[in-house]
Parts: sequence; C-alpha cells; structure tokens
Amino acid sequence: MVPITPSIMRCMDVGDIGEFELIDRLAATIAAEGKASIAAIEGHGFRLRLAVGDDAAAWDARSGVQVLTTDTMVEGVHFDLAYTGWRDLGWKAVAVNLSDVAAMGCTPLYSIVTLGLRDDLPVEGLVEMYRGMLDVSGRIGGGIVGGDVVRSPVFFVTLAMQGVAADTDDPTLLTRHSASAGDAVAVTGHLGCSAGGLRAMSDPTLRIAGETKAHLEAAHNRPVPRVPEGLGLVAHGITTAMDVSDGLVDDLGKICAASGVGAVIHSDRLPADRYLREAFPDDWLELALGGGEDYELLFTGSPELVRRCAGSLKVPVSIIGQIVQGSAVKVLDGRGQELEVRSRGWDHLARSR
Amino acid sequence: MVPITPSIMRCMDVGDIGEFELIDRLAATIAAEGKASIAAIEGHGFRLRLAVGDDAAAWDARSGVQVLTTDTMVEGVHFDLAYTGWRDLGWKAVAVNLSDVAAMGCTPLYSIVTLGLRDDLPVEGLVEMYRGMLDVSGRIGGGIVGGDVVRSPVFFVTLAMQGVAADTDDPTLLTRHSASAGDAVAVTGHLGCSAGGLRAMSDPTLRIAGETKAHLEAAHNRPVPRVPEGLGLVAHGITTAMDVSDGLVDDLGKICAASGVGAVIHSDRLPADRYLREAFPDDWLELALGGGEDYELLFTGSPELVRRCAGSLKVPVSIIGQIVQGSAVKVLDGRGQELEVRSRGWDHLARSR
Repeated sequence: MVPITPSIMRCMDVGDIGEFELIDRLAATIAAEGKASIAAIEGHGFRLRLAVGDDAAAWDARSGVQVLTTDTMVEGVHFDLAYTGWRDLGWKAVAVNLSDVAAMGCTPLYSIVTLGLRDDLPVEGLVEMYRGMLDVSGRIGGGIVGGDVVRSPVFFVTLAMQGVAADTDDPTLLTRHSASAGDAVAVTGHLGCSAGGLRAMSDPTLRIAGETKAHLEAAHNRPVPRVPEGLGLVAHGITTAMDVSDGLVDDLGKICAASGVGAVIHSDRLPADRYLREAFPDDWLELALGGGEDYELLFTGSPELVRRCAGSLKVPVSIIGQIVQGSAVKVLDGRGQELEVRSRGWDHLARSR
Repeated sequence: MVPITPSIMRCMDVGDIGEFELIDRLAATIAAEGKASIAAIEGHGFRLRLAVGDDAAAWDARSGVQVLTTDTMVEGVHFDLAYTGWRDLGWKAVAVNLSDVAAMGCTPLYSIVTLGLRDDLPVEGLVEMYRGMLDVSGRIGGGIVGGDVVRSPVFFVTLAMQGVAADTDDPTLLTRHSASAGDAVAVTGHLGCSAGGLRAMSDPTLRIAGETKAHLEAAHNRPVPRVPEGLGLVAHGITTAMDVSDGLVDDLGKICAASGVGAVIHSDRLPADRYLREAFPDDWLELALGGGEDYELLFTGSPELVRRCAGSLKVPVSIIGQIVQGSAVKVLDGRGQELEVRSRGWDHLARSR
C-alpha cells in the first residue's frame, strides 16, 4: 500500500466539502482576519449586531446620508485566474466597490459577498480570496459581514457595500451631475497602467519584464481605492467626482452627460507614468485615455479649488482639462490639435459591429 | 422589396442595444412604475437622494437597526425560463430577498440589482422582469434604486436589499439563535406547493392540470413574502424565525444548530394544502418536509405566545412541533413513530455521492 503523501493529495474543491462547510471556513477566515476592519466601523457610529449565519447581517446605525453600491467580477469577462491570483482577486473584488464608495466621498461600512461557484474551484483558493478581501478592508476600510453562496456554471464574485457620508449638518456627496463650464478637470494617481498590465500578462509577444512588469501587473490586480482622497475632496468642497473604471474619456463623458456640459482634455497633461510609457511607447496614450480599470478619482471644480486639492491630497493630482459648454469630450494634443479618440465604449454588452 | 412587418421583425436583444441603452430603458421602467414603492419608504424615516446613474445610490437615513441581505438566482440552477416567465422571474428575484428581510422582522427599504447578462437575452424580457420586480415591491415593500449590469456567459440576477427594524427604544430582530427547549414550532401558510409546482411543470408524465396546476405553479413562481407577518411576530414578542427556503427540515435544523437545541415535528400537523395532496398523493409529505422555496416564516416561541400569533396573523399559522433538548430534528407520524427523513441537504455545491 502506498501511503498518501502531500504531493499526491488532490486539493479539496468546493464540490468535495459542499456549501455549509465552505461557509464555515470562510466565516472562520473572516473571524480570524476581519476583526480590525469591523472594529474600525464602530468609530463611525455603527455597531454590528449579526454577521454571517442569519437571514441578513444587522447593525445599529446612526442617522446620516448612506450609500449602497454593488460591483461584480465574472470569470472570463472581468478576470482570468491565469493573470489574477486568488488573493489578488479578493483584493480587487473589494477594491472596486471601495472605489465606488470613495467616488461618492463616503466612508465604507459593511459589505456582503455573493459567490457564484463552480464545484471544481479549490477551497483553499477561495479562502485565499477572502484573505485578499480582508487585506484591503483592513488597510482601506469596509468590512465583510455576510453574503450568499450559490452554484453557478460560471464563477462570479459580487459585493454590495454600504457607505456613509461625513457626520455633518449638511453632508455632501460627490456626484456626476454637478459639473459646470469653467471647472477644471483633475484626476488622482496615474492612468493606463492597469490596462497595460493586463496587456503585458496576456500577450506573450510583448517582452515586458522586471520592475516594469511587476508595476503594471500590480496596477491591474491590486488597485488602491482612493477612499481617503474622496473624503479629502469633500472636505475641500468638491462636489463632482466619479471613479475611472471604464476609461478616462468614457467616464468623463458620463459626468458631461449627467451635468449637461462638455469637456476638453489635454493629452500632454495626462498622468501616464514612466513604466507605462516605457512598456508601450506607441500605445501609452490610448491606454491612458481609454484603458479603464484605473480606479482613480476623476473630479471637477473651480480651478482654484482643484489647485488647492492638488496641493493637499497625499497622492499626485493632475489637472488635465476643463469643463466647457457643449456635450462632447474632446482630446487636444500639445499643439492644440484635436485627436481622434476611438471610444472603446466599454459597452460590456453590445456586440462588436 | 418586401416591407418589414411586425411579425417578421426580430425582437431586439441585449447585444443589439448594449449596456447604456439597456440601463436607460430599465431606469425608465423604474421611474414609471416604481414611484409608489420609493415613496412608501419615506414613511419609515428614509429619503432617497440619488438612484440609478451615479457610483452608488444614496439616501438620508434615520438611526436604528438596519439589515442587509442578498440573494441570487442563476439560470439553470435556480430558474429555467421554460417554467418561469420574465415577469415571474422579476417577482421572485425580489420576493426571495423580501422574504429574508421579513424573516428578520424588518421593513424592506432600498435594494440594488446586479444583472449578469448573455447578449442574446431579449430586451423586452428584461423590461418585463423589472415590471415583475416593481410589482412585488409596490405590493409588499422595498424599492429598486440602482445596480450594476455586466456581461456573463450565464444569466443571473442578484439583489442586495436593506431593511430596518421597527423604530422603538429597543428594536428586536428575528434571529436563528434564540430558540429554547419548550418552545412551540410554527409556520405560516402552506408548505410543499412550490416544489410541487416545479415538479408539475418539469415532468411531462405528470398529468396535473387546471386549477391545481395553476395554484402550484403560482406557489413556485410568485411566492408571497411574509413581510407583514414578520413585523407582526416582532410586535407579539417572538424573537426566533427564519424563512423556509431550503426546506422545512433543513431550515429548522439551522435554527436548532444556531440555538443549540433539537426539534420534533408532527407530520400530521404539516400545512399541506388540498392541491398538493391531490396532485402528489404519494409524495406530498416529502415535498412539504423538504421541497423548499416555500418562503414561509418558520418561528418558535412559548406555546401561549405562538398560539396568540396563530390567532392574529392574517395568514394561516400551523403549530407543527416543539423545540426540545438535543440537536436533531425528528419527524413523527400520527402514531408517534419516527419517520426516516432523507435530508435533501439542499447543499447547493456538494457533488451527489
């Protein structure tokens, strides 16, 4: 009889242990590694009563302006386990929701997770995914308090996350409908690296390596949601912002549509970092304008207000253009010539035509 | 040239119009048919600030105990469009979440919808689905205020729904962990019809027709969440309840596990209606004990308290057993003999062994 050694033991998958044991393991992971993030939420006037294990999560809430958002990642559409590790997947699934809360100028609170699972997914992978979720929550905010696990022929992860505006007499939200002609347009951090990272990982003909590859991959797999920056914008009096998920031009187009204005962007002011320019000398501008999944904050406000924000946030802020009358988003090059931007549209449903 | 007549026009599908136009149409449906349900939520001290169209939905909230729940329906796992029409699908997707809020003893508030869509789904079907969602919200509570639309190789619908406990000094929630030995066990409405309806629709060898078929199908496709009943239980002082989604025996087992007790059910007291007994003379008991998707409230409390509830709720209440010391759920027949119940387990992930 040959003894079973670790090297020939098959990893347990979801179908081996089933829903109830899986939930127990995920709940144990949350209990072990999620305490600090739940405790931090108490500082905002909320106290958790019930987490995993009942028909709903429950908490005592203070009055105030609350937000609720949801974002989903579907395997083969939004992620590929060949390029995104389990822990990264968890980080990103939470980070994209934190980014929405940040883009409202709110503090993230409780969230619930829906897992649609194929039964051949590895249990240890899902536990690692939760570790990634708890990691970003512990660093940036929010806390996982429940959810739902279902069988699905395609793997997906959905979060619904609540947030709360600052506890002031007249709380402000960062919305899309409040931009005015004359506003400066600004963005936090750098653009294009996430899309560059995905391209670097998925196109084997590209020979991107070393520090550049690591930087671009991290931008794709571990976006850092701009929660403190969103709160900072509100504190400065900014009222218009959104996060860049579909790409700068398309997302600025949404602010313009909601506000009934147009915008001009100057391509020579775009914050494309040296890694992106080095890895994609021909395509960096396209990636910065339309790559998407940047999870930076795009905001507008009076030029002096935006300059003040640029000087005080802890991440770089680039003033990249102006809001104008009209309805279109135009991109000008360094000589003031309009660039033809093929809107990627990022219409996640429409067929290519 | 042959003129295009309506009869040969192909219905538009999601891939024809894309994400942004689809969202516009769904938002228009909500605006046209969802006003009353949103207005009703104001009566509970909440005021909507932002719905569809920003990074999150937002509202002014009063303080109090809030709950958040989520439930998902995946095509081929939880529903089949051959048996569940578009409007029914929308009704049910909302109803199963309302049922969770009811099972906490709370009033449903705002909810957000995630749609995972194949691009060949018909636009008009999705609009009808929203009409079904708004129909049940208008009748029973809750209001749709936003969500997320993503592309997915498998069609799924997820809701996240918030609720609030009654505005009292010491709000009570209905939980699973508060049952005690000596409690009576009761359930609202009837059991087994939903599973019977699914079986009637999916097994063509069964010759179930007419009023019986219609009754069973409606139980499967249009469950009526027991929101007023959940609030009624709290008002009467009940503290232990959950909704029956996985089947009576399994769900009572969850209350027992959470409370550290056992239970005895008397099969001759189960509320199986005449339609179910007539359609399934041999199987009605199995369907009532383990069919699932009943979305009735299962609750426990002192015998006199439960009797008082039974006399005052507007739906029938059946007292079906007792909580006892121990850990198992036993089912006894009319002569006190223990029935062997094959737990369906409803473990949605584990492989059949």
